[in-house]
Amino acid sequence: MTLKVLGYAAQSAKVPLAPFEFEQREARADDVVIDVMYCGVCHSDLHQARNDWGFSTYPLVPGHEVVGRVAKVGKNVTKFKVGDYAGIGCMVDSCRTCSPCEKGLEQYCLEGNTQTYNSVDRHDHMPTYGGYSKSIVASESFVLRMPEGIDLKAAAPLLCAGITTWSPLRHWNITKGSKVGVVGLGGLGHMALKLANALGAEVTLFTRSAGKAEDARRLGAHHIVVSTDEAQMAATHGEFDLIIDTVPYVHDINPYMPTLNIDGTLVFVGFLGDISPMLNTLSLILGRRSVAGSCIGGIAETQEMLDFCAKHNIGSDIEMINMPDINDAYERMLKSDVKYRFVIDMATLTA
Amino acid sequence: MTLKVLGYAAQSAKVPLAPFEFEQREARADDVVIDVMYCGVCHSDLHQARNDWGFSTYPLVPGHEVVGRVAKVGKNVTKFKVGDYAGIGCMVDSCRTCSPCEKGLEQYCLEGNTQTYNSVDRHDHMPTYGGYSKSIVASESFVLRMPEGIDLKAAAPLLCAGITTWSPLRHWNITKGSKVGVVGLGGLGHMALKLANALGAEVTLFTRSAGKAEDARRLGAHHIVVSTDEAQMAATHGEFDLIIDTVPYVHDINPYMPTLNIDGTLVFVGFLGDISPMLNTLSLILGRRSVAGSCIGGIAETQEMLDFCAKHNIGSDIEMINMPDINDAYERMLKSDVKYRFVIDMATLTA
Repeated sequence: MTLKVLGYAAQSAKVPLAPFEFEQREARADDVVIDVMYCGVCHSDLHQARNDWGFSTYPLVPGHEVVGRVAKVGKNVTKFKVGDYAGIGCMVDSCRTCSPCEKGLEQYCLEGNTQTYNSVDRHDHMPTYGGYSKSIVASESFVLRMPEGIDLKAAAPLLCAGITTWSPLRHWNITKGSKVGVVGLGGLGHMALKLANALGAEVTLFTRSAGKAEDARRLGAHHIVVSTDEAQMAATHGEFDLIIDTVPYVHDINPYMPTLNIDGTLVFVGFLGDISPMLNTLSLILGRRSVAGSCIGGIAETQEMLDFCAKHNIGSDIEMINMPDINDAYERMLKSDVKYRFVIDMATLTA
Repeated sequence: MTLKVLGYAAQSAKVPLAPFEFEQREARADDVVIDVMYCGVCHSDLHQARNDWGFSTYPLVPGHEVVGRVAKVGKNVTKFKVGDYAGIGCMVDSCRTCSPCEKGLEQYCLEGNTQTYNSVDRHDHMPTYGGYSKSIVASESFVLRMPEGIDLKAAAPLLCAGITTWSPLRHWNITKGSKVGVVGLGGLGHMALKLANALGAEVTLFTRSAGKAEDARRLGAHHIVVSTDEAQMAATHGEFDLIIDTVPYVHDINPYMPTLNIDGTLVFVGFLGDISPMLNTLSLILGRRSVAGSCIGGIAETQEMLDFCAKHNIGSDIEMINMPDINDAYERMLKSDVKYRFVIDMATLTA
């Protein structure tokens, strides 16, 4: 049995998003059905809508920063009841039995997790559709509880941009006194500044434009380093325990490597591709430094992050948009013209 | 005051090594003077003798895998007495006060450690000369105790090849049940196999030549993977906690990355240069994998390794040579024609 649900979809890589009615499964025993209130707009929405990565299937309903209210629960659901505020991030399922899944690292499921959209349900093999819609359904194991008092609109981007920066901060044990560098100030970067600051770290933003200094300080940076200024870069040599590199396009990481402390790590969270120009091993070997990558975060860790954000009054800096504005919003994102995340008010979605 | 000591030196990048008499300082209060018995021949000896890295100063007396007998001790020396067997590795000093030095990571000294040769003493500013000589002097803090019963000839290469592979094994917590891959089977690689095996790990050698299988098994490998065989490579996907990459020349590491487990690390110990072809971030991000580097090891860690090797009856596989054979030995090393380390019998050094 299925229900008709109204969403907003790309029908191909070349056309703007537009209203689209799709079939959604009836709630299974462990399912939670959520009436979507807000959905954050991630760069990957745009890339997948336009098939930039080559694996999009259409129709494609984007959206994996989903917040709403529980409308229905399956008979075995214990963690949610109708009326609760709930969220869904980038995953709606995984194998749940492999070693990473058992460790709460569902994002690294050995069979591959089920993505919130542009994926296929592992039970009924129906396509998954994201949060640009009136309703979304997922197993309660992949649904997040929205903590009491959290700003639901500003919380939506936490479900991707928040957890993607939170997970490496936690994995590399960032705490009071740690020194953290953040490369790039966009959706991910602005969350990295806020979260690293709230964890007690001394936070530095690396940026190409000194004009971002004021905003960066407001968001939690203690220091700003203009990455094209060699003297400023040299002054930070040996400094950082962790650098979170949020830049989504090709860029040279060699200048950042000597700014890491012994045993420091530069972690990619936003760039998929070849490291170009080539990474030189000298700074790796002479300081036991690492270059790593990190992908979103596990479900338990996402809940931990939401609870932390509620406690520390942290949300994304957002600009609310109406559903029909999404195509314009994509164009603005391509010009980095957003501070720092668009969130769609799903009440504005009409047929 | 200085003494005349006979060594074997390169007088320039272009000439063979030949006998050379140099000035050695009298023992300072904390110094140990060692009559050199054996000296291992490291690839970096050859590279520095020929100025391949561009920072050689001449005359250059190579050798940083030095074993001998204590001939003299300064008045404040407490750890050694005349007649003890002792060793010197790649470093003879460091600042001793920076944060890495205080943690026993003298190899990462923020002021730069003093290398055993091709370096300058930080007190009297005299050049340092290595173990291709009758005598060597260093502060007792940088002199290793040779454990009771260890094979002194086979122990010499432990002071560079041994510690260079031991340090990453220990840093990345390799223990019983860990899965370790080793890339390359030379001086470093054969020690990595022995040490990882003795630590209880399940050990795999990656090699381009299946002909190395028998030798690799004898040295401690449980499995051999021919790195050019895509099926064999695919069969190890997700396997390794740590890959020690000992290859000293440019090579593609992308095929190894998916063979790492979640949170696995590939660590360079033998290659200084640009990572070419370019490293792709996909396998980093989709498995929180790392690429790192590691440089020799600290002094306390080197002593730990020597004690471990004595206990487990581990030495390098060596071929003894006479001092005048060194130039031929270099030529053979360039053809990888050594199993697996040359060691010079310093009794054969004459003017």
